[in-house]
Amino acid sequence: MKEYIEVDEWKIIERGFNPQHNKISESIFSLGNGRMGQRANFEEAYSGDTLQGNYVAGVYYPDKTRVGWWKNGYPEYFAKVLNAANWIGIDVLIDGEQLDLAKCQVSSFSRELNMKEGYLKRTFTAKTTAGKMVDVETVRFCSMADDETGAIKYTISPVNFSGKITLTPFIDGDIANKDSNYDEKFWDEVKKEIWGDGGYIQLRTKKTGFEVATGMLFTILQNTVPVHLFSTTFEKEKYVAAKVELTVKQGESASVIKYAANLSSQNYPAAELSVNLKQTLTRIRKKGFETMLAEQAEAWSGKWKHNDIIIEGDAAAQQAIRFNIFQLNQTYTGEDDRLNIGPKGFTGEKYGGSTYWDTEAYCVPFYLSTADQKVTKNLLLYRYKQLGKAIDNAKLLGFKNGAALYPMVTMDGTECHNEWEITFEEIHRNGAIAYAIFNYVRYTADEAYLADYGLEVLIAIARFWSQRVNWSADKQQYVMLGVTGPNEYENNVNNNWYTNKQATWCMQYAMDAVEKVKQAAPAKYAALVSKINFNEAEETAKFKDIVAKMYFPYDEKERVFLQQDGYLDKEQILVKDLPATERPINQKWSWDRILRSCYIKQADVLQGIYFFEDQYDLDTIRRNFDFYEPRTVHESSLSPCVHAILAAKLGDEARAYEFYLRTSRLDLDDYNNDTEDGCHITSMAGTWMSVIEGFGGMRVKDGKLSFQPFLPGKWRSFSFHIGFRGALLNIKVSKDGVQIKNLSGSETTVWVYDKEQLVKPDDELLVEA
Amino acid sequence: MKEYIEVDEWKIIERGFNPQHNKISESIFSLGNGRMGQRANFEEAYSGDTLQGNYVAGVYYPDKTRVGWWKNGYPEYFAKVLNAANWIGIDVLIDGEQLDLAKCQVSSFSRELNMKEGYLKRTFTAKTTAGKMVDVETVRFCSMADDETGAIKYTISPVNFSGKITLTPFIDGDIANKDSNYDEKFWDEVKKEIWGDGGYIQLRTKKTGFEVATGMLFTILQNTVPVHLFSTTFEKEKYVAAKVELTVKQGESASVIKYAANLSSQNYPAAELSVNLKQTLTRIRKKGFETMLAEQAEAWSGKWKHNDIIIEGDAAAQQAIRFNIFQLNQTYTGEDDRLNIGPKGFTGEKYGGSTYWDTEAYCVPFYLSTADQKVTKNLLLYRYKQLGKAIDNAKLLGFKNGAALYPMVTMDGTECHNEWEITFEEIHRNGAIAYAIFNYVRYTADEAYLADYGLEVLIAIARFWSQRVNWSADKQQYVMLGVTGPNEYENNVNNNWYTNKQATWCMQYAMDAVEKVKQAAPAKYAALVSKINFNEAEETAKFKDIVAKMYFPYDEKERVFLQQDGYLDKEQILVKDLPATERPINQKWSWDRILRSCYIKQADVLQGIYFFEDQYDLDTIRRNFDFYEPRTVHESSLSPCVHAILAAKLGDEARAYEFYLRTSRLDLDDYNNDTEDGCHITSMAGTWMSVIEGFGGMRVKDGKLSFQPFLPGKWRSFSFHIGFRGALLNIKVSKDGVQIKNLSGSETTVWVYDKEQLVKPDDELLVEA
Repeated sequence: MKEYIEVDEWKIIERGFNPQHNKISESIFSLGNGRMGQRANFEEAYSGDTLQGNYVAGVYYPDKTRVGWWKNGYPEYFAKVLNAANWIGIDVLIDGEQLDLAKCQVSSFSRELNMKEGYLKRTFTAKTTAGKMVDVETVRFCSMADDETGAIKYTISPVNFSGKITLTPFIDGDIANKDSNYDEKFWDEVKKEIWGDGGYIQLRTKKTGFEVATGMLFTILQNTVPVHLFSTTFEKEKYVAAKVELTVKQGESASVIKYAANLSSQNYPAAELSVNLKQTLTRIRKKGFETMLAEQAEAWSGKWKHNDIIIEGDAAAQQAIRFNIFQLNQTYTGEDDRLNIGPKGFTGEKYGGSTYWDTEAYCVPFYLSTADQKVTKNLLLYRYKQLGKAIDNAKLLGFKNGAALYPMVTMDGTECHNEWEITFEEIHRNGAIAYAIFNYVRYTADEAYLADYGLEVLIAIARFWSQRVNWSADKQQYVMLGVTGPNEYENNVNNNWYTNKQATWCMQYAMDAVEKVKQAAPAKYAALVSKINFNEAEETAKFKDIVAKMYFPYDEKERVFLQQDGYLDKEQILVKDLPATERPINQKWSWDRILRSCYIKQADVLQGIYFFEDQYDLDTIRRNFDFYEPRTVHESSLSPCVHAILAAKLGDEARAYEFYLRTSRLDLDDYNNDTEDGCHITSMAGTWMSVIEGFGGMRVKDGKLSFQPFLPGKWRSFSFHIGFRGALLNIKVSKDGVQIKNLSGSETTVWVYDKEQLVKPDDELLVEA
Repeated sequence: MKEYIEVDEWKIIERGFNPQHNKISESIFSLGNGRMGQRANFEEAYSGDTLQGNYVAGVYYPDKTRVGWWKNGYPEYFAKVLNAANWIGIDVLIDGEQLDLAKCQVSSFSRELNMKEGYLKRTFTAKTTAGKMVDVETVRFCSMADDETGAIKYTISPVNFSGKITLTPFIDGDIANKDSNYDEKFWDEVKKEIWGDGGYIQLRTKKTGFEVATGMLFTILQNTVPVHLFSTTFEKEKYVAAKVELTVKQGESASVIKYAANLSSQNYPAAELSVNLKQTLTRIRKKGFETMLAEQAEAWSGKWKHNDIIIEGDAAAQQAIRFNIFQLNQTYTGEDDRLNIGPKGFTGEKYGGSTYWDTEAYCVPFYLSTADQKVTKNLLLYRYKQLGKAIDNAKLLGFKNGAALYPMVTMDGTECHNEWEITFEEIHRNGAIAYAIFNYVRYTADEAYLADYGLEVLIAIARFWSQRVNWSADKQQYVMLGVTGPNEYENNVNNNWYTNKQATWCMQYAMDAVEKVKQAAPAKYAALVSKINFNEAEETAKFKDIVAKMYFPYDEKERVFLQQDGYLDKEQILVKDLPATERPINQKWSWDRILRSCYIKQADVLQGIYFFEDQYDLDTIRRNFDFYEPRTVHESSLSPCVHAILAAKLGDEARAYEFYLRTSRLDLDDYNNDTEDGCHITSMAGTWMSVIEGFGGMRVKDGKLSFQPFLPGKWRSFSFHIGFRGALLNIKVSKDGVQIKNLSGSETTVWVYDKEQLVKPDDELLVEA
């Protein structure tokens, strides 16, 4: 755990130059706009420790699977998002000496991520080996308003000399992924151009043939005034640059404003990329840096209006929650249904930038409440469009008749992961994908989605479950053998309660959806039946039989749902009795020891209780919580949020707050010692859930929002925005009670502490605590 | 399945040139002498499909582990036997045109592996593109009498022309392993020399620094008469050659006799390798090819005298059983306790040439009966000397206090394998290693072995088991969680019956051995206690408690031991009801489907019953056999032998014979379509067991041999040699009964059909059927 980030309500601030934290800061100060993004690398050369990263959403490479021992059913490829052309680079020479902070004396270094307005600012004073001191300020952003573009303003002032400053803005496409299975480079050059004040390179990905054109136009300023200077151009393979030399007096300044754009063949014919790129670059340079920056602030202001959480009385918590919301918005905007939310967003390569069940289980609630419903719909459509590949994936494993198994990890719908115990067995992910449909329809009332898309997915998933169970002659019940639950610290278990629960719930929900669609859209239903060869009578009879006769492991003595068959054969030592030196067990223990222990990595039975809370009384929830939480090591960043929400539900405010703390500053404080690989983007949605569903106690109940809030002891108040079926509410929880403002023109009814409240358009009311 | 091998009682014969079978034949016709060996590659160049292989026992390379997803506890390296310098190569030019059977018209091709005398002979007629026909005969062997040497006689005769024959004997050390994780070459050159009639190269393995000098001396014959001709020498990196040109008339012949030797730094100081090599080469050339060949026949005759099995009335069975015995003897002679038996011997690289539990479970019975007891003792000492590494391996997984987990796969005692479900969980291997000690002592009565070596291993293994179990508060018994049994078609199961059985048996046997050694060798016992810090009272109390309170899964309804917890939850479809198109399931099914099925790869519960047969009555054995065999797919070559022995025990002669057939010609008929990778050496010992313990019903009973033979219907008789405590017996089973000849000077008593029989020295008797 590190605590070098300065607390500020709207900014992330690092003061002082900490080369040893540089890769962590590069992750934390990352920028993105849903379309492209980058780590907070320096513009000028840096020979110190760094992980360079520029990313373009949706552009991936199917890297040949690397495996120790092949198992039938493994995928051939792992599709991973690519480290793309570096567009931020500006080489700087000071009287001929290269500016490189690893080789200078650095003072007054600071980085600021302005979350309110969406830009990164860095300032420092550097003294070169030759003793020349310069002040540097650089501001950059990825435009939210114009999401194929970004801009940088880089200003340098001699402090103790007058001399020559050479600025060389460049585009470098000769990039290797750090995460490459066979040490290949994934990009080929298509073409490039360089001229006096700009240039571009167009690259093509190997195998997938995506083309991306990355270019720049730049303006040179001397003492803030644009000047036209002769430049020398350079090019080599996948690289273009233009060098400008200025004479700058002590105390005066030279600047370069670098306008950049990234265009992808996903959005333009490849042959037209360069023309469009040049038009885009010309357009933004004409607009100018300050105007772009103002548009950026405006775009972010719009975001914050809908999704800010304000915490009074705890600046660190305030900063943390905003950081989480900020990063989620940088990662996914919902504009494009071909994109999704990688676990590291645009902050690193780890996990291949692909889609996991994190999206459906953790991110969907965030986007449902804080963005237009089309954003979540696009996340759902992403899976709908990949249904064919999920069916192929199930076929590869021996399933039939349109059964679908969604991949554990994917970029384009094909499975990428290749550990059998995960790939083939962590099948509960199918449940989260069905649950997201349920959650979306429950939240938005967009029942039409079921008829148009949802039911087709639900039937395919139900078909999978119905084939995946088998009848146990011994138990005279259906069982589910050989699975891995959310608790990946056990593999190939029988009857994981959560998975069995998801399976029957999915089959039941599919049957309910069949009834709904049959009533509401009989023609669409008929078309679907014929399209997917759905034998309603026979298949639903089978679903019904399984739902009725499914086996659920249960312990009569403890009166808890059992994690899996045989769980109580394990030695039951609680986490509190585990020496601190042995944790985290995933670093300290061998894998077999982890598997044999009773320790649970992340919410599993409790994840099921969280999803299907309405089915359980408080006593049942409490018994299971009290049994499982003490056995849970929370070594997944996705675990504490579920516990925070359930603890809040059980009225245990102190523990709810404790669990919240474990996620909210996870990256800012490098809690798990791995932020240098990138930020934990999807678990940030879990932090949001802790506040809204935990402290706010928000649920959807019979088509209405409902709140059971409490105020964490340290806070004066907290307030948040929630969009719900056309209404936009601001909920403020303080000692005085719950204040509800309706910021929209739509009347709405909410439940607060089990009482219904009408909130008129543009009105507000206070429910006393 | 292929049937191109001609049946002959003493030879393996291939007639006709079958390039499509070449790699299979290269495996089948392999030569070895326990010290070195090679696939049956051609001496002359061959551009067709081939897997080149020369191997030197005990010389290995630790290839960096290749893994998809790292798990804590994985080994860093996979030590593998190396493909070593090619010493058989002889380039042949016919009037300037290279002899290459892939480019010639080939007729009268034959290969013969003479098992009686231990050599490989190949003859063919080839017509070159230029139309020149030659007859070629080549004979070669790896000397059993002089195990660092080998020789080749290569004779070529022009059939339809007179002309120039150029012969270039060479040594080529520029060899790459086919099985290399990162496509590296593993050998560096140390030095080389080449002179008129010989040369050598000395190579060093990367990382391990083994040095091997491989050299040749040759003699040229013209019409069988030695001639002295000028030669031209060549060298390049890791390669030396000498070229001789002869003018040969139609119908006459030219020959080269190539004497070769392989010396390793395991047996000589590296600096003295080349001197010793030259001496060895000089010595064998002086001896001459025919003398060496006669010594070879003599050495093999000695082997056969002790281990031949003679089958009358079934030539194919006769050939097959001899082939199995021949290959076992080629692989391991027991001369060197640093060596062991790789699953492919010297016939291929697959499985890295390392040691598996196959040695203890399948090969030990063969060597006990057919070789001097020191051979088996050396196999035991191999593990004894690796005890320290087995303790380190257990430590890596979190075990303490001198607990040992022997590796699943090893070359030098360190674990090589890296699939967690095997490496960490297939721990029953520890049981086989203890069982081999028991088996050796039972067979030889060498109780001193326990005091000197065995007990130390047994206590370390018992310590492992005592830590590996845990107390189930739920069951109020000890359980063993997270294991993989011999049936690798299930992973990470709880309470695999076989593993639990082995665990308690090991602990009990360790306690028995403690008592024995304490009585027989109190001083040695005291020394051991102090060496390994053995707290007898406390530790044996713990062993005793576990033995008394171990849980064994059992099904009351079927009255069978249960493969593992939850086995009866699986859908119970018998193998006979599985469509042929779905088999073998390891090729046709996805891994998860295999795991979820009830199908068993190889004997598991039955393996336990085989080992501990005395503990079970016939009814119990029959019930378990009748339950498990129909669920067993025998997709391991090690499965049928155990079934053959138990079927014989149960009096089911037809099935015993059926199971025997499944192993005996496994490689000769390429039954599993994988003989091209090498022969299944360790399963050949299983074939021997099928005959001796199955048809012969041989057991050791109260320190005496016991036989319950029956004659397979198709056979007139079968007979075999058995060495037992100084006596050498020949047992012949025919319709007349069981004839026992004592070929030794020691009197012995044997049980035949439950009646004791005294067999006097050099006497014989007949027990009527």
